[in-house]
Amino acid sequence: MSRWYNKTNSSMKTQNQRITLITKKQFEMVDITQQVRETVKAAHIQSGQVLIYNPHTTAAIRINHNESLLMQDMMKALYRLVPVDISYSHDLFEVRQQVSVNERSNGHAHVKAFLLGSSESLIIDQGEIVLGAKQSIFFVDLDGGRPRDYYISVIGEKA
Amino acid sequence: MSRWYNKTNSSMKTQNQRITLITKKQFEMVDITQQVRETVKAAHIQSGQVLIYNPHTTAAIRINHNESLLMQDMMKALYRLVPVDISYSHDLFEVRQQVSVNERSNGHAHVKAFLLGSSESLIIDQGEIVLGAKQSIFFVDLDGGRPRDYYISVIGEKA
Amino acid sequence: MSRWYNKTNSSMKTQNQRITLITKKQFEMVDITQQVRETVKAAHIQSGQVLIYNPHTTAAIRINHNESLLMQDMMKALYRLVPVDISYSHDLFEVRQQVSVNERSNGHAHVKAFLLGSSESLIIDQGEIVLGAKQSIFFVDLDGGRPRDYYISVIGEKA
Repeated sequence: MSRWYNKTNSSMKTQNQRITLITKKQFEMVDITQQVRETVKAAHIQSGQVLIYNPHTTAAIRINHNESLLMQDMMKALYRLVPVDISYSHDLFEVRQQVSVNERSNGHAHVKAFLLGSSESLIIDQGEIVLGAKQSIFFVDLDGGRPRDYYISVIGEKA
Repeated sequence: MSRWYNKTNSSMKTQNQRITLITKKQFEMVDITQQVRETVKAAHIQSGQVLIYNPHTTAAIRINHNESLLMQDMMKALYRLVPVDISYSHDLFEVRQQVSVNERSNGHAHVKAFLLGSSESLIIDQGEIVLGAKQSIFFVDLDGGRPRDYYISVIGEKA
Repeated sequence: MSRWYNKTNSSMKTQNQRITLITKKQFEMVDITQQVRETVKAAHIQSGQVLIYNPHTTAAIRINHNESLLMQDMMKALYRLVPVDISYSHDLFEVRQQVSVNERSNGHAHVKAFLLGSSESLIIDQGEIVLGAKQSIFFVDLDGGRPRDYYISVIGEKA
């Protein structure tokens, strides 16, 4: 029923990295699994956890299956639950305070990001991230077509 | 494309804190960013992670933009997706077991909390939490008008 | 307003465990609180964090109230928001690539998992997980009726 992976007693370390990417579409799921794998390997952590953090208010981090038709389904569900063609108070620039000149009408994207969440954490075991056979890690842009970044923060026992 | 923040080799520590607040409305987003900043500073952690944890079943932790019109949009979306005026079995006190005398009809709030999630984690780098320019951390009360609390748990390398 | 729990200075460790379970229904919330408690106790961590991680793309980890009528409400909300009887591109096996012979029509379950998220983290304090009075931890199967597993990853200061 259960299996212990390791019970080492070594010293600990942390490492934080910022990654930059560019999205091209309003809704875009960028598979960042390979980047996370490489960062974790370069950190030489044997056992611990890795936090993937999105610093934007119209994007999210999610883990699911990288299958192109399924990504359409996720997009359709989000647009059905949080439509772009209804009224968002956030987009009433006439009454809102602190509006920039290049402000986007992206109330819908904030709400989608609010539903999805800003981070996901994964386990590091034997120097590798633990991922299910069909899992990929995604940076999910909900108001894309611009440069974006995200962070990878590793904490654990040194190899 | 990427930047390493720090590769220190110092010793680690953890620190947990409970914070209490009072909400006044059924739906209320309380900006707790300043409290999280102060707790992380007081912990003297140079690099690591901070977990914000909500111990209630009708509240959530979320990170997004603190803009008053947008907070209306989030509220409207949640009430549209999980309406208060449909039937929730949780509120059938006649058939439910273990009902307190002061029980609230809050099935809708449990479901909203279930969709949103109980925690968010952030990165600590150079002694500060890493937040995007427009990000604030919120305690989201979905059945408010009462005292609430949440926890801040810091783990990382000592300054 | 706030209370410090502990400020120890002991050495740190990590521990990862995989747990297996079997679900019987399409939608099933399995209460895993007791298993998490036992794993944390066996790890002899005084203060730190525990990450509960789901490696499947049609399941999720959530924390809420273990009340049987409420679990119906959660199920009904998910099926209302992400119906099984609309079209999902993921289920168009005629056009999709990489389809197994025993493939399930589970586009809806992927979308539900995408909305809910793959992990939750909790705080360990004084050797125990910090849980609200009404909180239980759930493995949420959205395409069940088969063996599943999840991971518990503990990190913190040794007792």
